[in-house]
Amino acid sequence: MALPLRRPSRNDNGIALAVPILKERFGERCDLGEAMRAQHGHTTTWLPTESPDAVIFVESTEEVVEIVDLCRAHAVPIIPFGVGTSLEGHVNAPAGGISIDFSHMNRVLDVHEEDLTCTVEPGVTRKQLNEYLRDRGLFFPIDPGADATIGGMAATRASGTNAVRYGTMRDNVISLEAVMADGQVIRTASRAKKSSAGYDITRLLIGSEGTLGIITKITLKLSGIPEAISAAVCPFPSVEAACNATIMTIQCGIPVARIELLDALQMRAVNAYSKLDLPEQPTLFLEFHGSEAGVKEQAEAVSAIAEDLGGGPFTYSTRPEDRSKLWQARHDAYWASLGLRPGAAGISTDVCVPISRLAECVEETRADLVELDLIAPIVGHVGDGNFHTLLLVDRDDADERARAALYMERLAERAVRMEGTCTGEHGIGQGKMKYLRQELGGTVDVMKAIKATLDPHDILNPGKIF
Amino acid sequence: MALPLRRPSRNDNGIALAVPILKERFGERCDLGEAMRAQHGHTTTWLPTESPDAVIFVESTEEVVEIVDLCRAHAVPIIPFGVGTSLEGHVNAPAGGISIDFSHMNRVLDVHEEDLTCTVEPGVTRKQLNEYLRDRGLFFPIDPGADATIGGMAATRASGTNAVRYGTMRDNVISLEAVMADGQVIRTASRAKKSSAGYDITRLLIGSEGTLGIITKITLKLSGIPEAISAAVCPFPSVEAACNATIMTIQCGIPVARIELLDALQMRAVNAYSKLDLPEQPTLFLEFHGSEAGVKEQAEAVSAIAEDLGGGPFTYSTRPEDRSKLWQARHDAYWASLGLRPGAAGISTDVCVPISRLAECVEETRADLVELDLIAPIVGHVGDGNFHTLLLVDRDDADERARAALYMERLAERAVRMEGTCTGEHGIGQGKMKYLRQELGGTVDVMKAIKATLDPHDILNPGKIF
Repeated sequence: MALPLRRPSRNDNGIALAVPILKERFGERCDLGEAMRAQHGHTTTWLPTESPDAVIFVESTEEVVEIVDLCRAHAVPIIPFGVGTSLEGHVNAPAGGISIDFSHMNRVLDVHEEDLTCTVEPGVTRKQLNEYLRDRGLFFPIDPGADATIGGMAATRASGTNAVRYGTMRDNVISLEAVMADGQVIRTASRAKKSSAGYDITRLLIGSEGTLGIITKITLKLSGIPEAISAAVCPFPSVEAACNATIMTIQCGIPVARIELLDALQMRAVNAYSKLDLPEQPTLFLEFHGSEAGVKEQAEAVSAIAEDLGGGPFTYSTRPEDRSKLWQARHDAYWASLGLRPGAAGISTDVCVPISRLAECVEETRADLVELDLIAPIVGHVGDGNFHTLLLVDRDDADERARAALYMERLAERAVRMEGTCTGEHGIGQGKMKYLRQELGGTVDVMKAIKATLDPHDILNPGKIF
Repeated sequence: MALPLRRPSRNDNGIALAVPILKERFGERCDLGEAMRAQHGHTTTWLPTESPDAVIFVESTEEVVEIVDLCRAHAVPIIPFGVGTSLEGHVNAPAGGISIDFSHMNRVLDVHEEDLTCTVEPGVTRKQLNEYLRDRGLFFPIDPGADATIGGMAATRASGTNAVRYGTMRDNVISLEAVMADGQVIRTASRAKKSSAGYDITRLLIGSEGTLGIITKITLKLSGIPEAISAAVCPFPSVEAACNATIMTIQCGIPVARIELLDALQMRAVNAYSKLDLPEQPTLFLEFHGSEAGVKEQAEAVSAIAEDLGGGPFTYSTRPEDRSKLWQARHDAYWASLGLRPGAAGISTDVCVPISRLAECVEETRADLVELDLIAPIVGHVGDGNFHTLLLVDRDDADERARAALYMERLAERAVRMEGTCTGEHGIGQGKMKYLRQELGGTVDVMKAIKATLDPHDILNPGKIF
């Protein structure tokens, strides 16, 4: 599966000059060891590792500015690094350079309870933040599954299971501090909940994958921990019926917090992996947030919709331990999938289509998997029209790899044909570059013009997105 | 009140060449009459009229491309025009040029009920759209008060009373079609509900005030008309108590659809104007959307909060005719204010601060009005920390004009000092340029760099924002 990368050219001279200076300046916090470098240029997926030349553990915005100034002078690439949970090669170093590791910048700087905002450094992880907030009755709702850093989540416009109710990183970041390629530190917005003061540079940086600026502080919108949370599970006779139930739920304005689809293969995988005995049918997993009465009302409404569409039984619970049990299959989905074919590489796809096209898109995709003789259970954030197939590929089988590549191409084309996107939440990185123009046409030229202006020497995460 | 405008230089040569060509091409749809031109370079506020040289009523994206291509060749400014409800001089033509009037491009192109999306031309007004949608049980929630066009609302990142629940234009636009300065037509995103495919060019154009591209189609996120709507009104002993009730309401996660504050002076104005007998105290106007049970529960919760803070009586109704009556004071606020001082110019301010600073900001502002001997009732979208004061200024009194100018400067400084913005929803236009750098520092340089790249000849709405 060779990638048609625009591989930025490697400037060995500049790197050779810059690295010793940085080593001298940062001492032990500048790691040149092979293992550390490889770990920082490694994605959890099928993309080959591309190591940076050094990893620097920064401790302040000022240090980031120093590194940017030096790297600009020597035309050395800089790759911001959170914890490396990206799936599309965002942290790879195709032209070498410096990986800036933010794990030491992991302080929660302030929490404004009355405003439902907090400001954090980029290395804070989602779980760390929620632990910190719990006693105050607040939480940060974006949940991409992995315990990613807030900086990484902002840089890739992450979302996940809660997005159907709480939105994505786009909706939950109020303001950013960032170091730009010219070394300038900017604060993109005030802490006001809304503003119409000029261009939305906050949103421009969210999802820019470290190619326009290096995020050094993030001010987030928080939510109150709901008074009541309840969970439900409901099998359906078909993917179509499950999708239709989802459409009805959204259309009725029922504010579900999560609504996830697992297909029959995924359910079979979970039964095998977790020793469960669930119906091996397409199944919806739901979570409701609200008042005691509210969550009950929501669940009853969805239960009625499900029944109308031939779904059931609708199993429902408000007790935390029962909720965990009900959702176990969903939580285990990733590892259960890998268990379907031990030793295989797991490659996650990530298309998102208008919800009216979801059933059709999932069905065509399943048919394509059969035609191409590939194994890939399906998990979907169906309330948003977003679904993942986890391709289980034998790395050593060239023919299978070729079929997998064809499958992914057809999937992206299918999503675009159905007015959707090749990536709902994983980003472009290296892996999806070839689909970007197909999806957005001339808008890509606008992106490139902005990149060329804000980073004329192409030092910020080169070889990504374009 | 002279404005420190960066007035773009007028290219009389280019205009003299371009206008006859456009007149020849568009015939009657190219209006050179003085009245029409003045109407298109006129804001409803204190900013002087600056007429364009021609007004063209376009009928398609292709026509916009033609105009852009011609204007680029002759370095002639282009000013997109909706219905002209902007308050900060967005439609003025400080260097002359062509006003593109979108009133003929006012079709609803499609509605996807299952996806809760629709695509419209920019000249569709908010009320026209909601009329169109009503029979389908859907509505577009953004309500800036005026019956603005969707194109204008997108261009200025508008919001209004419903934003506390439904967000602003930022949150409710899925995708845009725009004609860029080079004549290229782009589609900024697919119709998927979320995407992480490259830079967020949709959000970059929203709020760019016609300076980066001309919006020619807008795909919107719609909402279901709620099953139940109820309204409430509650007076408070002080602005602080009303603000604290608002903070508590938001913090408790009560999903109020609208929560508006009128101060005592505004209430007095309304009593006089609408022959009402309401308590002349700071008063909250609320609206609740949800299920029958849900809206009742919400109102009960807010009522309890209000009582705790010394507010009351809490008057509540679900019947449409009673709801209108309860909200009459809010609806009449603008005209009632003008009635306080017939003949005066009304100048609306628009700061927005974190909600924890709102009471303090309003109180300081009121004290400043007393000190400067100015009259300005207050209306606030307090759930978002956004409030307007409507300055009533005698245009012929130079001293009063100077005091008003000083007041507005201090207000912007105060908002920025309290971590807020000089404009929550009206935009920068001409009127707020001088506050932008004060608020956002070097971020303004990033904006300027983007403007220079995407519109190198400065033909798109020059003299605005910067």
